[in-house]
Amino acid sequence: MSRWQPNARQRLQSAALELFSEQGFAETTVPQITARAGLTTRTFFRYFSDKREVLFGDDVDMPGLAARIIAEAPAELGPLQVIQGSLEAVAEAQFAGDVQRFIARKAVIDRDESLRAREMQKLAALSDAINTGFQRRGVDALTSALVAHTTVTVFGISIGRWLATKGATPLPELLHDTLDALHTIMVDPAWPAEQLAPVSTARPDVAAQHD
Amino acid sequence: MSRWQPNARQRLQSAALELFSEQGFAETTVPQITARAGLTTRTFFRYFSDKREVLFGDDVDMPGLAARIIAEAPAELGPLQVIQGSLEAVAEAQFAGDVQRFIARKAVIDRDESLRAREMQKLAALSDAINTGFQRRGVDALTSALVAHTTVTVFGISIGRWLATKGATPLPELLHDTLDALHTIMVDPAWPAEQLAPVSTARPDVAAQHD
Repeated sequence: MSRWQPNARQRLQSAALELFSEQGFAETTVPQITARAGLTTRTFFRYFSDKREVLFGDDVDMPGLAARIIAEAPAELGPLQVIQGSLEAVAEAQFAGDVQRFIARKAVIDRDESLRAREMQKLAALSDAINTGFQRRGVDALTSALVAHTTVTVFGISIGRWLATKGATPLPELLHDTLDALHTIMVDPAWPAEQLAPVSTARPDVAAQHD
Repeated sequence: MSRWQPNARQRLQSAALELFSEQGFAETTVPQITARAGLTTRTFFRYFSDKREVLFGDDVDMPGLAARIIAEAPAELGPLQVIQGSLEAVAEAQFAGDVQRFIARKAVIDRDESLRAREMQKLAALSDAINTGFQRRGVDALTSALVAHTTVTVFGISIGRWLATKGATPLPELLHDTLDALHTIMVDPAWPAEQLAPVSTARPDVAAQHD
């Protein structure tokens, strides 16, 4: 068992994902993973620091990638155009490979509170990087924050759709479609411009009650 | 010390917030809080199950409130109009009272990872309630999810602005202004409509490479 094992990393990942799916993340031990993979625990720790690393070790540095793309985008592009390019590049880097693996991974994460918290922190870090990236382009703080959160929303929802449809529709197409849907909501003609005025003028009946 | 103490709950909250601010949440014990407040630990546990409850015990059931408002909104209102009403009502219920207390509370939460995770979970629960609420109104799943996330974004950013300006601008006005800013980003004329088309048609050069 101590000799070199081809594809040891992939075998450990597959075995771990199977076990996490079957019996839960918290209930799975490293010896169980190595037994399933037919490898030693020593081999396991050559590739991963712990069992959590098996799920997150392949993650792309999404915040770093987003920051680079935003910094390098031509100055004349507006926030939405920059977002669109960043979304595609980050999604392409992070979600290359077998969609089934990402589906199984998501099911494992959804079932465990600490893993869900970790996923949320990852998205928060991506949002922070986008926010900082736009402020460095000279975009005001409010717009940068809104663009950052909106990007992460579109990103998260698109990935959810991609996994739900088992990758049938390419992720870049879903990213476009989701951004398009948000655009439609925001330009809703049923939402008159005067609704955007401060409460005191937009709802005189309510304001009057407080006087 | 065992007799009835007027304002015991408020005194415990103030003492706890002071100590959390001075020395951190994790480092503060219940006996320290009661000593500062001049009350017994028995009194403390009459009002709070633990020290975390001191920070979150006054929280309004935001998901429940949002669900009720969305369910009761007139059928002819579009998602954005319903959001606007919900935002104001939820913000008014949750953020009534002294802005200084909310500022101190936020500083404590920002410094502690477990408290930050708890805050994020609260916002995720609010998003889920809004999502479900719109689907019950017959709004499609994608629009409901986008509306839910966008609402929470506008809510979170507005509260951040309100705290940063120490409550100088009323929260409802900031909610309007933040929603208005998002609207401006989304209708950005620098973002031509053809950018919204699927990748395959919008970027024929890339599509050609894959053929």
